[in-house]
Amino acid sequence: MLYAVILAGGSGTRLWPRSRERKPKQFLDLAGDRTMLQEAVERIEPLVPLERIFVTTNREYVRLVREQVPQLPATNVIGEISSRGTAPAVGLAATLLRRRDPHATMAVLTADHLIADRPRFRRAIAAAAEVAGQGHLVTLGIQAAYPETGYGYIERGGALGNAGGFDVYRVVRFAEKPNLETAQAFVASSAYSWNSGMFIWRVADILAEMQRLMPDLYAQLEEIERTWDTPHQDETLARVWPQIAKQTIDFGVMERARDVAVIPVDIGWSDVGSWATLLDLLPADAHGNVLTGEVECVETHDSLIYSQGRLIAAIGLEEMIVVDTGDVVLVCPKSRAQDVRTIVERLQRAGKGHYTAGEAGREA
Amino acid sequence: MLYAVILAGGSGTRLWPRSRERKPKQFLDLAGDRTMLQEAVERIEPLVPLERIFVTTNREYVRLVREQVPQLPATNVIGEISSRGTAPAVGLAATLLRRRDPHATMAVLTADHLIADRPRFRRAIAAAAEVAGQGHLVTLGIQAAYPETGYGYIERGGALGNAGGFDVYRVVRFAEKPNLETAQAFVASSAYSWNSGMFIWRVADILAEMQRLMPDLYAQLEEIERTWDTPHQDETLARVWPQIAKQTIDFGVMERARDVAVIPVDIGWSDVGSWATLLDLLPADAHGNVLTGEVECVETHDSLIYSQGRLIAAIGLEEMIVVDTGDVVLVCPKSRAQDVRTIVERLQRAGKGHYTAGEAGREA
Repeated sequence: MLYAVILAGGSGTRLWPRSRERKPKQFLDLAGDRTMLQEAVERIEPLVPLERIFVTTNREYVRLVREQVPQLPATNVIGEISSRGTAPAVGLAATLLRRRDPHATMAVLTADHLIADRPRFRRAIAAAAEVAGQGHLVTLGIQAAYPETGYGYIERGGALGNAGGFDVYRVVRFAEKPNLETAQAFVASSAYSWNSGMFIWRVADILAEMQRLMPDLYAQLEEIERTWDTPHQDETLARVWPQIAKQTIDFGVMERARDVAVIPVDIGWSDVGSWATLLDLLPADAHGNVLTGEVECVETHDSLIYSQGRLIAAIGLEEMIVVDTGDVVLVCPKSRAQDVRTIVERLQRAGKGHYTAGEAGREA
Repeated sequence: MLYAVILAGGSGTRLWPRSRERKPKQFLDLAGDRTMLQEAVERIEPLVPLERIFVTTNREYVRLVREQVPQLPATNVIGEISSRGTAPAVGLAATLLRRRDPHATMAVLTADHLIADRPRFRRAIAAAAEVAGQGHLVTLGIQAAYPETGYGYIERGGALGNAGGFDVYRVVRFAEKPNLETAQAFVASSAYSWNSGMFIWRVADILAEMQRLMPDLYAQLEEIERTWDTPHQDETLARVWPQIAKQTIDFGVMERARDVAVIPVDIGWSDVGSWATLLDLLPADAHGNVLTGEVECVETHDSLIYSQGRLIAAIGLEEMIVVDTGDVVLVCPKSRAQDVRTIVERLQRAGKGHYTAGEAGREA
């Protein structure tokens, strides 16, 4: 039986001032009228019914998850104490799924990415589940469109056959975020794809690898599992979770796992990593502008302007980002969108964390 | 006796969104903690005591004048019905001064310009008053720093001597706003200076020229004068004023007047014609930035950023203007600052006049 586990614990800063610590990217309607979490649930739902969709997140975001996906059974929201990286999150979900269904196959999905081609995404997941049924840990690889240095890459090796129309390959290695030269070599070679962070495997297989490669974590997960659904559940979680070492599933398991397969897919994937990405992604008007809210433009092109209740008057802007959230106005060239992090860090150091912590748009 | 008449009726749009129809430039603290009107009063006060300083403005701005210059005697604020240009404003002030003191000399000053060198400004006015005492209509010419096409120019002719250390010349002609080529020729020649809009003359002399050159206006002013300080004052003003033709003092009188003198001065004058001018004018930090309010900058240079209560985060800006007034955010390159007018006109046409009419910074 196929289960979906949507990771919704991230707290990126590059979409500040819309994303805040208390309401990060996955809970925002960045690309339309649905939040990214809502889209993540909706795009898998035709393949995996709601009762088999789980969302794992930090405790502080549980309320947001319930608000945004009220149709999800309450017990399907796994609220960890705090973020310890993807390895403990995936491990906890796998442990709890195993209790419910020892033969479960789980698809680890993301809540903070966009996927344009939803039918193809579901076909890929279904194919991956088929491959996982043969004992492989399967990852979806995204066709690398350009030499992005912010992503990990997956090098594929020999063909493992075909599933549901998708070619399947052995994974030779997971490559950490490369420098530009290496990234360019990766893109030039057909053997590399971006690591999407989406994985499909049987819970028995991932837990076996976790027991082998991350024995401490595995023991801690077992300890949590023992009191789950007992009166001691919360107490155990509160005691054990903070002791868990932070680790990603990529580094903790995938890079050293025995039997990893990759299915390269072309599904219109984007991680919406910055305002620049969003500008490229969203439908633009005749001038190449993506405008939201009350905006008045004169000779402005290829710019993203987001207003929340106020008038933004733009004159002569080219490839600019202007985001007004009520308490903050961000202005930067598209080419500098990555540096939003710098501002966020500086505000936090300067004791102005209220601009990065609280919810945006208080006045809207 | 020397009187000062400060013209404070203008309603420019190029400093929008700070300047609004209900609170134009002269009532704003654009260059410090004093409004431009307050600065205009303060810089002449050491030469002309308050009881001889008059402010002429539209009726709707009388309240602002009284609020900002409460030390001014109430009867020294001349509130016209509406703006009919500088000729009727100057004419009305001259008429009222004549009633009080037939031998009065009046200095017509502006409330929407900045003057850096106040002592020299006062010495120039004192010198001009001396020259006016010989029957000349005197104007202060500003040394033309660059070929500005937005100003009128004054061509000087033969020397008339020296007053208080200032050379005085006959005026050959007032030249309307020139095209760029002509402006360049003007600047290259030492015979031209900018028309500052500051004039010094005896009220008897200006009214005589007005009677000769603008007989209709003169008759209308006499009609108003007849009931001034009677119970019929307001009624007469309300009846006559709207019939007065709009005209500037430059076109209506100065260009055709018989005996005009110019005193070229170098007093650090600026008309603060746009956000770009203000950026050039105000003291900048080490990065060339003029920052007001809560602003956080990363690699931002030579930019003016004005915040009123909100955080503005700027990344990688060069020569940009960002002005947040609470209800409006303006973003434009310094080079496009003149086009603020375009936005204002468009908003008015689009039925969004509330963004250009009302007071800025409602929320601050």
